[in-house]
Amino acid sequence: MIYFNSDYVEGAHPEILKRLIETNACQTVGYGEDEFCENARNLIKKECGRQDIDVHFLVGGTQANTTVIASCLKPYQAALSAKTGHINVHETGAIEATGHKVIGLESGSDGKLSHKAVEDFYNAHWNDVTHEHQPQPKLVYVSDSTENGAVYKKSELKALSEVCRKCGLYLFLDGARLGYAMASPENDLTLADLCELCDVFYIGGTKVGALFGEAVVIINPELKADFRYNIKQRGGMLAKGRLLGIQFETLFTDKLYFKIADHAVKLAFKIADALKEKGVKFLSEPESNQIFPIFSNDIIKKIEEKYLVSFWEKVDEANSAIRICTSFMTKEENADAIIKDILALI
Amino acid sequence: MIYFNSDYVEGAHPEILKRLIETNACQTVGYGEDEFCENARNLIKKECGRQDIDVHFLVGGTQANTTVIASCLKPYQAALSAKTGHINVHETGAIEATGHKVIGLESGSDGKLSHKAVEDFYNAHWNDVTHEHQPQPKLVYVSDSTENGAVYKKSELKALSEVCRKCGLYLFLDGARLGYAMASPENDLTLADLCELCDVFYIGGTKVGALFGEAVVIINPELKADFRYNIKQRGGMLAKGRLLGIQFETLFTDKLYFKIADHAVKLAFKIADALKEKGVKFLSEPESNQIFPIFSNDIIKKIEEKYLVSFWEKVDEANSAIRICTSFMTKEENADAIIKDILALI
Amino acid sequence: MIYFNSDYVEGAHPEILKRLIETNACQTVGYGEDEFCENARNLIKKECGRQDIDVHFLVGGTQANTTVIASCLKPYQAALSAKTGHINVHETGAIEATGHKVIGLESGSDGKLSHKAVEDFYNAHWNDVTHEHQPQPKLVYVSDSTENGAVYKKSELKALSEVCRKCGLYLFLDGARLGYAMASPENDLTLADLCELCDVFYIGGTKVGALFGEAVVIINPELKADFRYNIKQRGGMLAKGRLLGIQFETLFTDKLYFKIADHAVKLAFKIADALKEKGVKFLSEPESNQIFPIFSNDIIKKIEEKYLVSFWEKVDEANSAIRICTSFMTKEENADAIIKDILALI
Amino acid sequence: MIYFNSDYVEGAHPEILKRLIETNACQTVGYGEDEFCENARNLIKKECGRQDIDVHFLVGGTQANTTVIASCLKPYQAALSAKTGHINVHETGAIEATGHKVIGLESGSDGKLSHKAVEDFYNAHWNDVTHEHQPQPKLVYVSDSTENGAVYKKSELKALSEVCRKCGLYLFLDGARLGYAMASPENDLTLADLCELCDVFYIGGTKVGALFGEAVVIINPELKADFRYNIKQRGGMLAKGRLLGIQFETLFTDKLYFKIADHAVKLAFKIADALKEKGVKFLSEPESNQIFPIFSNDIIKKIEEKYLVSFWEKVDEANSAIRICTSFMTKEENADAIIKDILALI
Repeated sequence: MIYFNSDYVEGAHPEILKRLIETNACQTVGYGEDEFCENARNLIKKECGRQDIDVHFLVGGTQANTTVIASCLKPYQAALSAKTGHINVHETGAIEATGHKVIGLESGSDGKLSHKAVEDFYNAHWNDVTHEHQPQPKLVYVSDSTENGAVYKKSELKALSEVCRKCGLYLFLDGARLGYAMASPENDLTLADLCELCDVFYIGGTKVGALFGEAVVIINPELKADFRYNIKQRGGMLAKGRLLGIQFETLFTDKLYFKIADHAVKLAFKIADALKEKGVKFLSEPESNQIFPIFSNDIIKKIEEKYLVSFWEKVDEANSAIRICTSFMTKEENADAIIKDILALI
Repeated sequence: MIYFNSDYVEGAHPEILKRLIETNACQTVGYGEDEFCENARNLIKKECGRQDIDVHFLVGGTQANTTVIASCLKPYQAALSAKTGHINVHETGAIEATGHKVIGLESGSDGKLSHKAVEDFYNAHWNDVTHEHQPQPKLVYVSDSTENGAVYKKSELKALSEVCRKCGLYLFLDGARLGYAMASPENDLTLADLCELCDVFYIGGTKVGALFGEAVVIINPELKADFRYNIKQRGGMLAKGRLLGIQFETLFTDKLYFKIADHAVKLAFKIADALKEKGVKFLSEPESNQIFPIFSNDIIKKIEEKYLVSFWEKVDEANSAIRICTSFMTKEENADAIIKDILALI
Repeated sequence: MIYFNSDYVEGAHPEILKRLIETNACQTVGYGEDEFCENARNLIKKECGRQDIDVHFLVGGTQANTTVIASCLKPYQAALSAKTGHINVHETGAIEATGHKVIGLESGSDGKLSHKAVEDFYNAHWNDVTHEHQPQPKLVYVSDSTENGAVYKKSELKALSEVCRKCGLYLFLDGARLGYAMASPENDLTLADLCELCDVFYIGGTKVGALFGEAVVIINPELKADFRYNIKQRGGMLAKGRLLGIQFETLFTDKLYFKIADHAVKLAFKIADALKEKGVKFLSEPESNQIFPIFSNDIIKKIEEKYLVSFWEKVDEANSAIRICTSFMTKEENADAIIKDILALI
Repeated sequence: MIYFNSDYVEGAHPEILKRLIETNACQTVGYGEDEFCENARNLIKKECGRQDIDVHFLVGGTQANTTVIASCLKPYQAALSAKTGHINVHETGAIEATGHKVIGLESGSDGKLSHKAVEDFYNAHWNDVTHEHQPQPKLVYVSDSTENGAVYKKSELKALSEVCRKCGLYLFLDGARLGYAMASPENDLTLADLCELCDVFYIGGTKVGALFGEAVVIINPELKADFRYNIKQRGGMLAKGRLLGIQFETLFTDKLYFKIADHAVKLAFKIADALKEKGVKFLSEPESNQIFPIFSNDIIKKIEEKYLVSFWEKVDEANSAIRICTSFMTKEENADAIIKDILALI
């Protein structure tokens, strides 16, 4: 069985394991205050072209989302998200468990949240005489790439950012798949842009080369104070924090992070292009390492005999979309194999 | 500088890194449902001599404590802990952040909670006519070894367990340092005993050989249902769950976990015995890998020139206790060095 | 200005004030353990035709919803509600503040939740392989009458109840306007029916004759234990609990509660019928004390010169629906006046 | 049976009931935005001698404490309280239910928190290298009068206030019994002083003349924004908010609040002086409407045949302290009766 069901089916980039072995006997202090973390923070600041940002390392995405969002909001404030946003549908109510409502706004099939949806909701809230009886919108959550594989254009994120600043909302970008977003031919955003446009975002390692780890970048000074207390309280302060430092150090040396993301996106497009050429339709236009081709249910069953893919959604009685996901470790031969096998089926 | 300040200053046991490399390219499903986790669960069940237990892997201790305790309690229920218990003093209110009061009970300088303290508190609660105006005690938290390096005798844990069953309280044992507790000459408990006496406990990996990881063992059937929802909600469900499986598989093959804990405790006793022989007093009797010798403040300053140790507490104006902590990776030569250097100072 | 904007614009039924004065100097114990509360509980049990239920008195609706729902759910469990349900839109995230997601399901313009919507959601949850990554549905929340003035038919509530029992979901009915629901010509439910069909519900006093107060009725034995701890923890245990006892005693003597609700609904229908006769359309069919006529925006402006009504929603560019709400204290002369004035406008 | 067990055993001051009847048919908007509340706010501002304060009305003490404290703190911050403080021992963990640890500091038998205890704790926190692993102290909670009947001297509160300002801590005064504190011969504080020294405090109505109600006064501008969202979220926004306005309007007209508190304290001192004269000892010196005489257990049993008093604590095997509590409605003849009966027993 070959796995295309997600981007965390393998371990880490071999360079990371090599560094873990090299540094294994080094003695360091714990909790992210070691020299590996310090170096990794500096490398990320350099890549962002900014020294006035705070960088913190967390283990996983739900933890990062929860810790960041809970640190930003007063008890009666809520986060706005696309309906399909990860915090709204796939984190077992982790945000609500910290006391905050996630308000799901309508979005297109690409899973992108528009600045208009945010502004309309904001205005509706404050124009409603009963607004004190409703959670107050205070933070906007977007994922890049989205849960549906789309990437934000710079103009889109800029429009969101402007609305947020006008309305006093924080803009938080979940970059669990940021590497793959930035490797997309559609992408025109840089880390420096994110620092300019967002209040806080994170660079996902788990899905892009690391064993685990997300690097939270805080730009807005209001959100910086005491962030480590939040990390500890939410169970995210890794005793051997160096493990996160070593991994991000490796990923941000010689642009490894971007190179390996490129690899994944290239293979995804290779598969997508081959299928398109034969007339296969997609649920949404392929933009990054997740693609959503539509097949008849019979063909899906046959694909699943040899490949693990994710069922995504029913299109009609006879046809459904699946998700095919490549990663930094996907072998080209496996991409070629699935192309060949699918083409033989259709 | 040589580090004796804690038991997580190095990486992992080399065998674990070897296995991570061997398995790195394997493709598995995520979230702990892979074959490595399954195998690790079976090895732990075997070591416990029980098949009717649930085993879950979490990343760290605060996360394990929070997830377990929040899963056991109704909103108005509280956890009882020794005042010095980790959840009461060193987790930034993580338990309270899930809505529950931690009630700190008096304990000896060893940090052990007595069955009498628990029973007295329980009776006082229910005999008080205003008990509905107080959080209801429902869970007893103990650490083995304790934050002060002491280990529970089987008779002590049995007495606690009996009180808990009589009173309808859950008994939860934090085993972040369980390996070192079991390597203590004072220890007469086995994993099978813990399964008999506790409702839930965990086997600490982070401090005993792993890069990270705690294996939660749930014995009480009431506490088993839907535990994975709790893990996900608290941000503890590792995408590449296999990393936890691989580590515990390794630790529970050929009793590696116990062997490496032995190594640490032996070195701690080597240091303790050498100091005792020269008349050094200890804050409490050395029992495991953490020892608490008392020195004059001048001597402590000199020790700190070459060694990183933890300041523990002031004994009087001129003297203080420090903590010296060994680990599964402490080199015998470093233990010998600190002995020699301290003896030269006193 | 005459107020038709809500059903809590006046004080209490005069009989209640009379009783407060008569009992003012009596000395009683606090926190709802006095003889007035005991008597009120017995009167409600009698009206329900059941002795095996628990009755608790709370001050207000948001407090009742929060206390009940938080007492029913484990941390990872969620409440299902119609999208328009009060807990989903008008309680400032009070349920989320206790850690639980409210999942808003589609409903008709009447605000009623269908058994099919519940069953479909339940099945979708458990059929999804990633269900552990989503909050687990455990409680169904309905309001009778709904926020849109509709009342549940017995057959509808029975169907909901059957789905809930089949699926292991609790059925909780918010009866903030239960008196007005039961006074509706559409109603065929009794308190005994609610005891049969729900796990927990409450009888609203604030909007139906009392100064304040909601009587929570717990039928399901699982939900009874320690409920008073929940009340105290959520800030709902009134020191002078007798005030709630005295009010519900009065309301449930000689069926006062039902008689005064009748009065309000009769006047609402008087207004509705007069408007209908002249061709006024309604957003939804009038069923209880809240009616939602549609007028041109110009006419609404004129109505608002003399009457306080609630703007409800835009129907099109030129027309909107308003809410006209009667209460147990609405004067017939005021109902006549608004009829006359509106008829003169159209 | 005559009740001296607490200060909420009767209803309200008759003047309040009179006003409730007079205003019963008035129509007003809800949620505290009516003209009675507005007038009550103005009367309180006048009594405080300040216009730049916000006044909000809540129903009860636990609700007030929870709403205020949760509104002041970030998730990882804690409240400091005397060990005997109401929030620490008698609110079923209501503060913890909002996510915050209450840290109980040692105090004298009077239940007063000293500025030194606060400052020492604050310094210990920030001097500890592991402070990020502990909840961060941010708010100081004091009760005046205390749970043990003592009143703060102006010098004491000033010293607390100075420490709080130096350390960046909020000072919150629970005035559930503020009227009785201010009626104490020991008192030298005014409402204007409280505005000067505290960041937020409340004036208790429930125990001092009202049916229910606490008036929260917010002085610190940082704490003012959006407070009504907090009230609504915590279930404290009374639909018929006017009931609170009417009560506080009455209490703050012609200094009724202070006059009726005086009455209670005078009777408490009458009892205390009579007992003292006969050699009865007290647990702590009588200062307000709660007094704590010590009797042999036999005598207590006899007292309890005719009077309801609160058992307070065991003094030794043979003797215990009870609490005798007077209120704004205590009849002088009852005070005389208990004096006579106790004197006959000793």
